[in-house]
Amino acid sequence: MANSPSGESVIHRVVRILSAFGEDSPALGLRELARSVDLPVSTVYRLVSELELEGLLVRDTAGRLRHGHRLWELASRGSRASSLREAALPPMEDLINHGFSHVSLGVLEGNDVLYIERLAADDATVNITKIAGRLPVHGCSAGLVFMAYAQEVVQEMFLSRRLEKLTEDTVTEPEKLRAILAEIRGRGYVSMRGIIVPESSGISVPIFTEKNHAVATLSAIVPRGEESLNLIVPHLKIASSAITRRLGYEPSGREIQRRSTPAAF
Amino acid sequence: MANSPSGESVIHRVVRILSAFGEDSPALGLRELARSVDLPVSTVYRLVSELELEGLLVRDTAGRLRHGHRLWELASRGSRASSLREAALPPMEDLINHGFSHVSLGVLEGNDVLYIERLAADDATVNITKIAGRLPVHGCSAGLVFMAYAQEVVQEMFLSRRLEKLTEDTVTEPEKLRAILAEIRGRGYVSMRGIIVPESSGISVPIFTEKNHAVATLSAIVPRGEESLNLIVPHLKIASSAITRRLGYEPSGREIQRRSTPAAF
Repeated sequence: MANSPSGESVIHRVVRILSAFGEDSPALGLRELARSVDLPVSTVYRLVSELELEGLLVRDTAGRLRHGHRLWELASRGSRASSLREAALPPMEDLINHGFSHVSLGVLEGNDVLYIERLAADDATVNITKIAGRLPVHGCSAGLVFMAYAQEVVQEMFLSRRLEKLTEDTVTEPEKLRAILAEIRGRGYVSMRGIIVPESSGISVPIFTEKNHAVATLSAIVPRGEESLNLIVPHLKIASSAITRRLGYEPSGREIQRRSTPAAF
Repeated sequence: MANSPSGESVIHRVVRILSAFGEDSPALGLRELARSVDLPVSTVYRLVSELELEGLLVRDTAGRLRHGHRLWELASRGSRASSLREAALPPMEDLINHGFSHVSLGVLEGNDVLYIERLAADDATVNITKIAGRLPVHGCSAGLVFMAYAQEVVQEMFLSRRLEKLTEDTVTEPEKLRAILAEIRGRGYVSMRGIIVPESSGISVPIFTEKNHAVATLSAIVPRGEESLNLIVPHLKIASSAITRRLGYEPSGREIQRRSTPAAF
């Protein structure tokens, strides 16, 4: 019903068209867009006209196409990312007000950590996470936290993959990674030095909504060599519990209980 | 190519399916979803399977459908709402830290103001704006600011519509509205008492990226009767200029200039 002669579904084409817009290319002309998605201009024209009708794409004053606010609205209303963000923002702001220079909130999305929020004090720590940006799970402290609390089958799949060495310090050996994951489960946090960029270290803790299942991660990024773990880790863990509570769950010791008032998440 | 026998396009159906999820219904079973969009279960099943393949919908542990993080990611990357949010968040936080109880950031979307960010101090002022929530333009101070700086043809369309009286104080008479819009252009702000809920007042200023065109609005919501305009308005205007600057424009007197460094917006 919904497939083109080439067998590609309309939905897949729409996703490709919407994905062509990004931070570096927020506005595209029709021909530019057609080139970028490798489809005939006439095909793109038809799909774009429908997307404009729905408000998912709009034309700017120069006639170029952009994402419409309607797309953002559609995605935000039912989004777990939005409820997580709203729950996490005040505790994250508290961390910044208490001297943290960079904090970020991640969710697991396939083999990547997707960063759904990031706050930064005005200083110069290198932090390559971006809102709606991704990092591979083995290339960031947040990813290792997700793997530590993942189901065994997911962990084994992760450990059996060939992992790219992103810096000298990226850990790619299954046995070393296995030891790190066990340590994370024991200590409730991880600190990794320079695994994605040499100058920065990441310290991450899980955010739980059920026992031993990390629904998200909270991370601090600090200049390499300045990991004052005895200061940073307790603050991160307290902020993580505050987020759990704001999501409608009660962290009590090592157990998590659903509160009677339902939350959006 | 992409239409069902009923003539409804796949894209329109997909938008209807994705719109069925919201704050009150973040997770839906297949039958529940089919009922809510008024389509046969078999049709919804086919479309949902494709949306799952794209990661736009996912199943939770109970087997119910939810928006996938991928949808949020897709919408956030190219979104003007996201760049606006990022530019506006620090100045908005400054307002909260300086004693403002509620501030919100709005964009114009059709006949509504769509709120793309909202910050609140912990107190009891009634504020019905929600992130990704909407209010009709004549029912909020932000909407009147958008109308004040809209093109004349848009203003006239607005003034000729039959507007609903949402409270006793909602202004719906074209002549009164015309006077309010002129006043906004003269003063650069508006303060409206109880036009959508009787207990609260809204004070809004435009955020400019070109002269006399409001790309967004910044609003403070205060308990009715506590509109200390001599304190609130200058703070809002300063924050608005800060946001303009963070978007890559230079507000200088009554003119706005694009800075050489391009911004995402």
